Amino acid sequence: MNELIEYIKNDITVTDTIQEKLNRICVKKQVQKGENILSENSLKKQHIFVLRGCLRSFYRMENGKEVTIQFAIKDWWIGDYITLYTEHKSILSIEGLSKSEILLIDKTELERLYIEHPEFATFHRKNFEKHIATLQKRILSLLTQTAAEKYQQFITDYADFAQKIPNYQIASYLGITPESLSRVRKEMAKQ
Amino acid sequence: MNELIEYIKNDITVTDTIQEKLNRICVKKQVQKGENILSENSLKKQHIFVLRGCLRSFYRMENGKEVTIQFAIKDWWIGDYITLYTEHKSILSIEGLSKSEILLIDKTELERLYIEHPEFATFHRKNFEKHIATLQKRILSLLTQTAAEKYQQFITDYADFAQKIPNYQIASYLGITPESLSRVRKEMAKQ
Repeated sequence: MNELIEYIKNDITVTDTIQEKLNRICVKKQVQKGENILSENSLKKQHIFVLRGCLRSFYRMENGKEVTIQFAIKDWWIGDYITLYTEHKSILSIEGLSKSEILLIDKTELERLYIEHPEFATFHRKNFEKHIATLQKRILSLLTQTAAEKYQQFITDYADFAQKIPNYQIASYLGITPESLSRVRKEMAKQ
Repeated sequence: MNELIEYIKNDITVTDTIQEKLNRICVKKQVQKGENILSENSLKKQHIFVLRGCLRSFYRMENGKEVTIQFAIKDWWIGDYITLYTEHKSILSIEGLSKSEILLIDKTELERLYIEHPEFATFHRKNFEKHIATLQKRILSLLTQTAAEKYQQFITDYADFAQKIPNYQIASYLGITPESLSRVRKEMAKQ
């Protein structure tokens, strides 16, 4: 819980009242490796903040292939933003990639906090802005980077965790085939 | 200008005061086909709202190839969200694809409006949420859809405009080659 408070303090002053309310609305949860946090066709509107470990959101294609949309490690948010922000059911699933600890925050409760504490709005806005910039970067990367550049960026972003994530999940996240990923890794090992 | 007011009225009540302030901070601009609105390496922090016509944002690769990141038609927003929301210079360019009319809104001025009128915050939040859901959908489309599915979605989203946009721009937006796009179009014409 303190990790989230520290994270928020990067942007704003967190009063005791806000801290108490946050404590009330955040539900801490231990997640096992492979444990499902969100399933497809759910209407659950929850923000997920990662305290420890690693989670991923993914889309299951009709042929059964899973495409990873996002990985999230310590101090990152993860969610199905189509369900969170529209009336649609979730199309993504979210699972633990390793033993993890997360905070689940109900969307409506968090919104009430923003309304009750307008000073919290700055944090909210900055969070939205960071998120939009990150998503634009990801689209840009998918459209313009080579497989090698994408992988280089990936290991920079996820550092230690890159070694713990199965190849096929990394490849689907980067929008390349597992064969391309193996080639890139071999090339990098030679350098 | 009235178009923006109407757009905002979908989410909130717009008081006369807010309307007057919006009139003051929005700068209406006529855009010619091919006219540049934002260049790379700019620190200009402006939101762009399209009143008429069509704009696109694109990334110029080292080899000179242009990759379209977004198209925007009537009632859509467009911008380089990395410059807008971080301290980085713009990496995208924005240009008119046809004779267009836009509103330019300075980021700082708009933020002042949000602070002065907290009732405006709901509109702000909903706008951010819609934007995040749209970007997630786009990432999902790039990673999971076939060329035919992407193109089908494109002509649904851009309706009349799809015919007016050069093939190579559509292909780069969809993350497919112009040859794939031609094949898809031929297949669709047969059906």
